[in-house]
Amino acid sequence: MYTYDYLFGFTKTVFLRMGCPEEDANTIAKVFLAAELRDHASHGMIRIKDYYELWKEGRINVKPDVKVVHESPSTAVVDGDNSVGMVCARRSMELAIAKAGKAGTGWVATRNSNHFGIAGYYAMMALEHDMIGICLTNANPLVAPTFSISRMMGTNPIAVAIPAFKQPPFVADFATTPIARGKLAVAEKKGEKVALGFVQDKTGKPSDDPTILKSGGSMVTLGGDRLHGSHKGYCLSAIVDIFSAVFSGANFGPFVPPSVAYLPVLEKKVGEGTGHFFGAMRIDAFQPAEEFKMKIDEWIETFRTAKPADGEERVLIPGDPEREAEERIRRNGIQLVPAIKDDLLKIAAELGVKFE
Amino acid sequence: MYTYDYLFGFTKTVFLRMGCPEEDANTIAKVFLAAELRDHASHGMIRIKDYYELWKEGRINVKPDVKVVHESPSTAVVDGDNSVGMVCARRSMELAIAKAGKAGTGWVATRNSNHFGIAGYYAMMALEHDMIGICLTNANPLVAPTFSISRMMGTNPIAVAIPAFKQPPFVADFATTPIARGKLAVAEKKGEKVALGFVQDKTGKPSDDPTILKSGGSMVTLGGDRLHGSHKGYCLSAIVDIFSAVFSGANFGPFVPPSVAYLPVLEKKVGEGTGHFFGAMRIDAFQPAEEFKMKIDEWIETFRTAKPADGEERVLIPGDPEREAEERIRRNGIQLVPAIKDDLLKIAAELGVKFE
Repeated sequence: MYTYDYLFGFTKTVFLRMGCPEEDANTIAKVFLAAELRDHASHGMIRIKDYYELWKEGRINVKPDVKVVHESPSTAVVDGDNSVGMVCARRSMELAIAKAGKAGTGWVATRNSNHFGIAGYYAMMALEHDMIGICLTNANPLVAPTFSISRMMGTNPIAVAIPAFKQPPFVADFATTPIARGKLAVAEKKGEKVALGFVQDKTGKPSDDPTILKSGGSMVTLGGDRLHGSHKGYCLSAIVDIFSAVFSGANFGPFVPPSVAYLPVLEKKVGEGTGHFFGAMRIDAFQPAEEFKMKIDEWIETFRTAKPADGEERVLIPGDPEREAEERIRRNGIQLVPAIKDDLLKIAAELGVKFE
Repeated sequence: MYTYDYLFGFTKTVFLRMGCPEEDANTIAKVFLAAELRDHASHGMIRIKDYYELWKEGRINVKPDVKVVHESPSTAVVDGDNSVGMVCARRSMELAIAKAGKAGTGWVATRNSNHFGIAGYYAMMALEHDMIGICLTNANPLVAPTFSISRMMGTNPIAVAIPAFKQPPFVADFATTPIARGKLAVAEKKGEKVALGFVQDKTGKPSDDPTILKSGGSMVTLGGDRLHGSHKGYCLSAIVDIFSAVFSGANFGPFVPPSVAYLPVLEKKVGEGTGHFFGAMRIDAFQPAEEFKMKIDEWIETFRTAKPADGEERVLIPGDPEREAEERIRRNGIQLVPAIKDDLLKIAAELGVKFE
C-alpha cells in the first residue's frame, strides 16, 4: 500500500525529470492520482509507462506552448502543442470557466493533445465556481459502429459534474461503450471469459473472448446490439468524436493517434493529435446558484428514495461509487499491482528517481 | 394514404379551432408532420388526441404568453406559460440561435411546457444558420434507474444536428432507453412478446411482456442491465432531466406532469410543467464554417467506408434512416392506422373540421 503523498511525489518527480515545468508536473500527478483515488486505476499510475515511452521516442512535447488559436465570447479553440494531455486539458478547462464567468457559458475545443487521464477531473474543476462542468474526449479507435466490424471510434467518454448544496455533487463520467477497455485486460490476465455484449469477433459475431481485439475483433457501443440500442451508443460516441476533433481540428475517429509507443504513428492524419471538448455553465446564468443547488439536493434525495429491485441494496447517484472509493482509498492507501510496480521501478531506475 | 399538405392543413385547422393563433397552429402542424415524415409516427398525428383532450379539460393554454424570465449573453430561461410544447420550444430554439449569433453559443432552458413532439425538429433548426443544434427534454416517468424498480425518469431524448457541406447533415435523435415507448404499444396491439432487455416487472426481473408497465413494471435505461452499462443510460437520462428541469425550474424526474388527459394531474409539484433544454453553437465560433462542414463530409465519408459485419448491408450515419424515410413517405404519402384515423374523425366531427 502506498500513501497518496508518496505516489504524488514520485509521479511529479518522474515528469519533472522528463523535463516538464513544475506546474505541469504538478497537474499531471494530480490527475493520475485522482484516477487512483476514484478507483479508476486503468487511468492512473499504469499510464505513466505509456507517457514515459512516448517521451523516450520524442513523441510528446514536455515544454509545450499551449495557445488559444480562435475565440468568441463563449468559445475558444486551444492548440495543445502535443503536450501531455493533462497540461492543455487543465488550461482549456480553466479557459472555459473564465469564459463562462463573463458570457454565462464557456466551450473550449482542444486539438494537438494526448491522453489526458480521467475526463471527470476536468468536469469537476467547474464545481467550486458554482458551474456545471462538461468534458468529452476522443480516443484510440477500438470500437465499431452498429452493423460494422471496423474500429472507427474510441471509448469516447462523457463527463458531467453538477454541484449540489448539502449533498455531494452529481458526477457522471462514463465511456460510451458497455465497459471500459481495462476490464478486458483484467479478464485476460485472469484467463477468464467475459460476458457477451462487450466485444465481437472479426466477422461481427458476439464474442466472450477478452483477447479478441488482437485478432481483428472490436468493442461494441453502449446498447450492445441494434435491437438493444447500440445505434444510440454509436450516436453518442460519434457526437463526442465530432465535438472533440472537428470543432478543434484534431484527428477524428480512426485517425486518433496511439496513446502508447508500441503502436506506430499512423500514416494518415486528418488533423493535429487527439481532441477534447470542455464546457462550463455558470449556474446563475440560469437560476440563482443557491436555489439551483438546493433543487439538486432535492433531485438527489428524490432519487435516493427509489425502491431497490429484489436483491439490490440501494439506488446510486452518479458519483457515489467514486466518492466512496476515494474515502476508502485515502484511508487504506493505494494498491499497485506487481506488474505496474515493476514498470515504475524500471522507470525510476532509468530516471534516477527513488521508488520502492 | 394522405398527402403531407392534407394532413398539415387538417392539423393546423384543428389547433386553430382550439384557439391557437395562426403562427402557433402552423408550428404545431409542422412538428407533428415532421414526425410523420421521419417515420416517428409515435410522435406524430397520434398525439393530436392527447392535446385535444388536455385542451378540453383546460389543462393546456392555447393563448400563452411565452416569456424570457432570465438571461446572460449566452443563456436564457423561458417560461412557456403552459403552452402546447411546440410553441415555446420553437421560440426557445430561436432564442438560442439568436444568442449564438452574438456570443458564439446560445443555451436556453424552458419550463412550464408540455410534450413538444420530436426533439430532432428543434436541433435541426440550427442547421440553416451554420450552427450545431442540440435539444433535450424530460418526459413522463416510466423508466427506473439502475438497481431500482421505481419509475423516476422519462425516455428523456437527446437530439444533436450537425451541418455538413455536400453530405446530408448528421442528425442524431434518440431516447436514453433501449427502445421508445411506442414499440411496446405496437407489440401489445399485435399480441406479441418483446425481447428481453427493454422492460422489467415490479420486482426488477427482466420481462418480455409489453404490457408490464400496467402492472407495476418499468422500462430500463440504455445498456439494459448493470453488467452491460445501464448505469450509463441512467446517467444520460439524469443529465437530460437536470438540464431540462432544474436549469429551467420545471418539474424533474417523477414529478413531470402527464402528457395525456386520462392520467390525473400529479399532487406534488417541484416546478412548473415539463422542461426542455436547447443549444445552438455557431460553427465559426470554433472553425471557419466551410472548413468545418467539409471536415464533417470527410467524417461521414470515412464512416461510410466502415466494413459491414457478416449479414449486414452497410453502416448508417445518424440521420440516414429518417432522411430515407422522408424521401419515401413524401413520395408515397402518409399512412394512418385505423385507430388513429378514427380518433381524428371524432375530433374533426366535434370541432366541425372536414376530415376523411
